[in-house]
Amino acid sequence: MILVNGKAEDRIAIADRGLQYGDGLFETIAFRNGVAEFIDAHLQRLLLGCKRLNIPFQQLDLLHQELEAIYQKLANTDSVIKIIITRGSGGRGYLADQSVVPTRIISTHDYPSYPKSHSQMGVTVRLCQHRLSENHSLAGLKHLNRLDNVLARNEWNDSDIAEGLMFDQTNHLIEGTMTNVFLVKSQQLITPSLNKAGVEGIMKAQLIAVTKQLGLTVNETHITQDDLKNADEVFVCNSVNGIWPVIAVIDVADYTVGPITQQLQQGLSRVRR
Amino acid sequence: MILVNGKAEDRIAIADRGLQYGDGLFETIAFRNGVAEFIDAHLQRLLLGCKRLNIPFQQLDLLHQELEAIYQKLANTDSVIKIIITRGSGGRGYLADQSVVPTRIISTHDYPSYPKSHSQMGVTVRLCQHRLSENHSLAGLKHLNRLDNVLARNEWNDSDIAEGLMFDQTNHLIEGTMTNVFLVKSQQLITPSLNKAGVEGIMKAQLIAVTKQLGLTVNETHITQDDLKNADEVFVCNSVNGIWPVIAVIDVADYTVGPITQQLQQGLSRVRR
Repeated sequence: MILVNGKAEDRIAIADRGLQYGDGLFETIAFRNGVAEFIDAHLQRLLLGCKRLNIPFQQLDLLHQELEAIYQKLANTDSVIKIIITRGSGGRGYLADQSVVPTRIISTHDYPSYPKSHSQMGVTVRLCQHRLSENHSLAGLKHLNRLDNVLARNEWNDSDIAEGLMFDQTNHLIEGTMTNVFLVKSQQLITPSLNKAGVEGIMKAQLIAVTKQLGLTVNETHITQDDLKNADEVFVCNSVNGIWPVIAVIDVADYTVGPITQQLQQGLSRVRR
Repeated sequence: MILVNGKAEDRIAIADRGLQYGDGLFETIAFRNGVAEFIDAHLQRLLLGCKRLNIPFQQLDLLHQELEAIYQKLANTDSVIKIIITRGSGGRGYLADQSVVPTRIISTHDYPSYPKSHSQMGVTVRLCQHRLSENHSLAGLKHLNRLDNVLARNEWNDSDIAEGLMFDQTNHLIEGTMTNVFLVKSQQLITPSLNKAGVEGIMKAQLIAVTKQLGLTVNETHITQDDLKNADEVFVCNSVNGIWPVIAVIDVADYTVGPITQQLQQGLSRVRR
């Protein structure tokens, strides 16, 4: 099911700046048990992204209505809802028209069929060769310029490897191709600071809130491959899959599914309805 | 006029990875006096880009045929021809299907109506606040992840300012929003090395060939704002507009339309038919 500006469509104008330049943003939302999880946080990030990219998105009411229609249609079918907002069509090259109207695209997708064991027994991940682009002005945003993630994710095609970890140009660990990453060292949670690269994930923010409830603290900092090697626990997370404990980073280290990771999984299950 | 995979269409599938991730490349070609200028160089760069991004583009013969049909239709109308190649549709998130077939999009556009004086009397340009992303693996490519250029170009909307100059994260001059940039200092041409950011322009390569014919040399190197300030001559160039001498960089320096710039313009006019 796809809605483009509220209408059932599966195509978009070639002239749309989303295609021409990747001039837009997106959100990937878990629809579980009839509920779009963390939808307020997703929409808030979307609006913040529009503000940072100066995309004049004024159609939040319409977007809400269209989402409601989507929820009705999905009923109780667990699904992934993807929202894309582009700057719209028009302009002379990179310069947008002053009157440009952003495009809203909402699409639904099957809930991914990863094994349940990913959450319980943990996953094996690898290090990606492809390095993330660095840009203070774009860091954190879930924009449509995702060639880095594409190139990193297409380095392997072995379903036994659940995720690839990505580093920046100066070899700091930043994120997974579709996840944020956390380490535990001496009872302390650390996660990469994303001021030069990476996406500020909704699940990451939710987990940081959970850690506070649990009396744990999270340090957002520079993380190297050595830190990864020496970690007591490692896990990756995103909005759709929740927390996947990491039991091996190929050629780096093996881990067990540790107590803090499990504590966070339990905390998260109380937040996710 | 737009052809998508050889068919007259003005829309593309929402699922196309060009829209979803900016997963593709493009070329902008000047069609003047019935000829697609430097078409071989454009197609060579496109193929090189596909190779670097691992896009399995095998349809060069079809693309040639479609371009020929476009040339026939355009006849003698000067136009801009834009080619987009995306990785195509499909895949689970960032991971592409092994069987993915790239999408070919060819569109034609009015030749831009910049004043002739831009080439003869020169232009005023500004410095952009937005900095370019840095990534060795993507540098040089004309890929569809162009948010940097969009954000920089939308910093101003004053037609008296013809271009904006862009710097990287460590304040090296890289390019204009839609041009490459050259400086002349003490009879020596210099242009930014593009190994961390920027697009390797077709016109830049053509001009470097012209300089060799003229017995001039070009040094590709790091360039700072001070170098820009102290330059004897500055010009920007691209495939559509050729060379625009720069007579002022706002808040930095004024220049005259200098002899080496003029020599290159004459040399270029012999190459452009």
